[in-house]
Amino acid sequence: MENIAEISTALDTAWILIMGLLVFFMNTGFAMLESGFSRVKNTVNMLSKNVTVFFISVLAFWFIGFALMFSEANGFIGINSFLGLFLSGNKEFYSSLKHLNIPLDAIFFFQMVFAGTAATIVSGALAERTKFISFLIFTFFMSALIYPVSGHWILGKGFLYDLGVRDFAGSLMVHTVGGMAALAGVMVMGPRVGKYNKDLTPNAILGHSIPMITLGGFILWLGWFGFKMGCTFGFSPELCAHIALCTNASGIMGGLGALIGSWYFLRKPDLSMVINGLLAGLVASTASCAYVSLPSAHLIGFVAGSLTVISILSLERFFYIDDPVGAISVHGIGGIWGSLALGLFSAREHINYAHVAYPKAGLFFGGGAEQLLLQLIGILAVVVWSFIISFIVWKILKHTIGIRVSQKAEVDGLDLAEHGMEAYPGFVSSGDSII
Amino acid sequence: MENIAEISTALDTAWILIMGLLVFFMNTGFAMLESGFSRVKNTVNMLSKNVTVFFISVLAFWFIGFALMFSEANGFIGINSFLGLFLSGNKEFYSSLKHLNIPLDAIFFFQMVFAGTAATIVSGALAERTKFISFLIFTFFMSALIYPVSGHWILGKGFLYDLGVRDFAGSLMVHTVGGMAALAGVMVMGPRVGKYNKDLTPNAILGHSIPMITLGGFILWLGWFGFKMGCTFGFSPELCAHIALCTNASGIMGGLGALIGSWYFLRKPDLSMVINGLLAGLVASTASCAYVSLPSAHLIGFVAGSLTVISILSLERFFYIDDPVGAISVHGIGGIWGSLALGLFSAREHINYAHVAYPKAGLFFGGGAEQLLLQLIGILAVVVWSFIISFIVWKILKHTIGIRVSQKAEVDGLDLAEHGMEAYPGFVSSGDSII
Amino acid sequence: MENIAEISTALDTAWILIMGLLVFFMNTGFAMLESGFSRVKNTVNMLSKNVTVFFISVLAFWFIGFALMFSEANGFIGINSFLGLFLSGNKEFYSSLKHLNIPLDAIFFFQMVFAGTAATIVSGALAERTKFISFLIFTFFMSALIYPVSGHWILGKGFLYDLGVRDFAGSLMVHTVGGMAALAGVMVMGPRVGKYNKDLTPNAILGHSIPMITLGGFILWLGWFGFKMGCTFGFSPELCAHIALCTNASGIMGGLGALIGSWYFLRKPDLSMVINGLLAGLVASTASCAYVSLPSAHLIGFVAGSLTVISILSLERFFYIDDPVGAISVHGIGGIWGSLALGLFSAREHINYAHVAYPKAGLFFGGGAEQLLLQLIGILAVVVWSFIISFIVWKILKHTIGIRVSQKAEVDGLDLAEHGMEAYPGFVSSGDSII
Repeated sequence: MENIAEISTALDTAWILIMGLLVFFMNTGFAMLESGFSRVKNTVNMLSKNVTVFFISVLAFWFIGFALMFSEANGFIGINSFLGLFLSGNKEFYSSLKHLNIPLDAIFFFQMVFAGTAATIVSGALAERTKFISFLIFTFFMSALIYPVSGHWILGKGFLYDLGVRDFAGSLMVHTVGGMAALAGVMVMGPRVGKYNKDLTPNAILGHSIPMITLGGFILWLGWFGFKMGCTFGFSPELCAHIALCTNASGIMGGLGALIGSWYFLRKPDLSMVINGLLAGLVASTASCAYVSLPSAHLIGFVAGSLTVISILSLERFFYIDDPVGAISVHGIGGIWGSLALGLFSAREHINYAHVAYPKAGLFFGGGAEQLLLQLIGILAVVVWSFIISFIVWKILKHTIGIRVSQKAEVDGLDLAEHGMEAYPGFVSSGDSII
Repeated sequence: MENIAEISTALDTAWILIMGLLVFFMNTGFAMLESGFSRVKNTVNMLSKNVTVFFISVLAFWFIGFALMFSEANGFIGINSFLGLFLSGNKEFYSSLKHLNIPLDAIFFFQMVFAGTAATIVSGALAERTKFISFLIFTFFMSALIYPVSGHWILGKGFLYDLGVRDFAGSLMVHTVGGMAALAGVMVMGPRVGKYNKDLTPNAILGHSIPMITLGGFILWLGWFGFKMGCTFGFSPELCAHIALCTNASGIMGGLGALIGSWYFLRKPDLSMVINGLLAGLVASTASCAYVSLPSAHLIGFVAGSLTVISILSLERFFYIDDPVGAISVHGIGGIWGSLALGLFSAREHINYAHVAYPKAGLFFGGGAEQLLLQLIGILAVVVWSFIISFIVWKILKHTIGIRVSQKAEVDGLDLAEHGMEAYPGFVSSGDSII
Repeated sequence: MENIAEISTALDTAWILIMGLLVFFMNTGFAMLESGFSRVKNTVNMLSKNVTVFFISVLAFWFIGFALMFSEANGFIGINSFLGLFLSGNKEFYSSLKHLNIPLDAIFFFQMVFAGTAATIVSGALAERTKFISFLIFTFFMSALIYPVSGHWILGKGFLYDLGVRDFAGSLMVHTVGGMAALAGVMVMGPRVGKYNKDLTPNAILGHSIPMITLGGFILWLGWFGFKMGCTFGFSPELCAHIALCTNASGIMGGLGALIGSWYFLRKPDLSMVINGLLAGLVASTASCAYVSLPSAHLIGFVAGSLTVISILSLERFFYIDDPVGAISVHGIGGIWGSLALGLFSAREHINYAHVAYPKAGLFFGGGAEQLLLQLIGILAVVVWSFIISFIVWKILKHTIGIRVSQKAEVDGLDLAEHGMEAYPGFVSSGDSII
């Protein structure tokens, strides 16, 4: 490296790659978290989904998703995207990225692992009853079409971006989309055998390993720092340090919110609720961590964590949504709240950084309701798109190859039925824990 | 970035943030290690403590600890600290940090995760019998007061620093303090039900998962590289590479020391001892890794690992200290040895780096006993402070809200008693393993 | 940092250290993967080997291996290596490294953790029957002699390098060598009790934890990014980003290859095969990731993953090689394929970077068969060396201190026999799962 510009590019690129590795590691976190929430008999299946969902989503994003999301567009979708299949375009081709000083490969690496998370969110909500092959096909649509299109609207500088909707690192683009795809899937799929009694009261079907849930939660938290600090498309000392603090704060306050919430509603400090609450806190600050103050990040996280407890219990009890890991609440509700919170807490005195387009000041910070309304429009557009298209894909899959394993396979466990193997040969299982 | 100074600041900041993430990841390591050392029936409780202790310690450190530790002071304590509550001061306010070229937020991020480890040390030693809420309250005092005050004396450039006491990355400030707080807690709390027979011979109460202990040990080792290489407050190629080698060497030799020690004393290569030995090696070189040669780091680690075996067995057999994970030996004894070793092995031919204040040469490196005496003074001051104040806090908690669960709860397990849940629904447990 | 050169050195060094930490973390991955493939009763033993193998290999590499590998040489071996014991030489002494701009300590740190992986490969193949002490002694020879000598031929700029053989990050130097040492060990050792019936048909002896296998696989994948991106000996934005993509692609396609292969041969999507396939994909692209196009990396990985399934099944069924974790197939066969693939896919239009010596264009990219023949020569030399020397060391160990535990110890499990402890006190085991 021989001059300031080269070194600057090198540092920005190294940063993006390292943050990308942290995001990549989130796959491990999701695998541990979601498997821990499954019963013993479905553990191999859950792990298999988490491994292969990344395979499929990376390939789909490489094939077409990236071009759809970032190439020249009419605002709604990359119109000449098919020229960019398999990353064949040069940086100029991807019009919303061409101003960046880092290599296209590095941008693609980060965006690829970033895209991978949206698909992973779905696997947890559909745990313990979904056909392996159908899930893989849905994943392909998710990463080739569903995620990139609404992603294009914002990160690809499409119509929502032009309107002024902001979403720094994806509360809306990634988490709300993942949550809505999961919700659509659960609605088409229906609850697990044994989840509801004849009088429609729910049973708790316990996950098989709290240590795996905790390990997964911690790894996700670690990865989330990369998820957010990499969305700068470069390195800014002031901004990245601020994001690190806000990320941590919202996770902690989300966990505390859920701790208090579970103590209040369930009369016990429920660790799985705490982990979900902290994840919801991390989800919620994803949209706004670059734009809000540190105290605001605390508050955003706390509300998210509290909401999660209420949402998990309500979805189960009043809406008959059987989401074994709480993904719809954590990512869907947490994502919507976070996208909205940006319109409330966005502050003018943030740190300026060239690669970040800032929103207007939020309702609580002297900006009036304008940004909040913009965020509402953005949420509406993204929720409608991702829910309806996901619903259609799940419906088509249901009426063609089928999306659900047989009732016998579900009772026996998907590990034996779909994979012909057990997760823990050598241990004596006590069977399902349903209370 | 447009000039050398900006890029230099950026690289230093990126380094600190990445090292901070590694330290953050140590929470995962502690959670796995300490839960692995617990019995099945206390696993959720141990995990819950490891998750929430980080919540509380970060909030306490943000609230007041950071200001106490780093703001302008009379040598003993930050006198106008209350002006710096909630990180409200600018960098000038934190007088011992104002010369640094990286943003205050980045410094705080690293110091915050760093502070979090001190509190975590305590949780393991008090495992399997402590009330959840009392532990959280102690944690608050630990991170708001106990750790920051003695931290101020050294890292905050208080009276010990002025005397010449050195502690590069916290053998004394973090590990000895954590170990003493743990010791005080165990002394006030007493041993677990079933630990000692009527003739006061101890029983071994086996932890439930050696894989979790090993996973935790490895993650802690990884995190420790960040723990030490981040204490440079910037990036120095020579110094950071040297620290990486010394860290690794002391861990390895600590593990080997414990391997040989356990083969000698217990007639078997005991993996849990090996893991504790390697952690003790990492603890011991924490004070001096920037000041000693690579062969010295090997020796410091080896002594630490050997000491750990002796300390764990002695505390259990002769002092009736029931420390389920060996935290007092690893962090307390290892920390004291490491703080002392600095006075023995500190070398003049070390790598100079502007942000590091070097000690005098140690006893074995031609400097006479001066630095050794200084280290003794430092150890004495920190041990007395942290033990006494911790003892007082534990005593007050004992006589107010109580610190120990009921005997029934302890026998049934804290998971059911305190959290109403099991760690492994779906597996058949054989109950406690006491031999 | 005050000028371009200093900052450039700093960034290069920071990069190498961080990549080195990722490689270090691979120890955790190997420990989880290999233990997961073991039965409950051998878990502590497997974990102990993974921990201590790193101790021994680091010490052996520090003692002599590094000097053998990198010091001035006659092409075959570092002739005055004994002057460089314990890293006592300065950078000039290590002639193949002296042109680098980063500190010797940083180079050593990376090479040390890099060397550690070669020894770890062996432990899995010899699982569940090897004497602990004999394995440690073999490890010493591996890291002090076997790995450094053939490493010297290529990375140390010995005779293979001079001929034109290339191996960017060690498909040949690390993985083939590890695989051959494992093969020699298994041939000398023989299969586990109960692996083969009287008619020589094999039984499947199931590993005890698919979650640990998956966790290990993910951590290895993460570490592999560092394994490859650190072999640049510095940071190049274009090259490192390209390597990141190729690494990820070959892993994914390896996993998919094994998924399809296992579905075809075993009639089920076998997750342990998928994990091994993805690791084989990562192994295979290790030699060439800096020299091939992204689509080529996909293809190399896919072939590796498919080969792995065939190799694992063939070695077990037709060659009576009992390799509990599939290490010989993943690292040995995957490594040989990867070394060969470089001669097929190496492309002229790669990214130039000063610290990398590029091969000629491969057979499929207009370069004719020259590079392919060179790679064949390299493979032949390294396979012969590593297999024969390993075979001799294993034979000597067998006829002196013995390499295998007693049949009783093997049936009872090595945890009790060699370590006097159990991995999971508190759980009821159902004993071996042999089908």
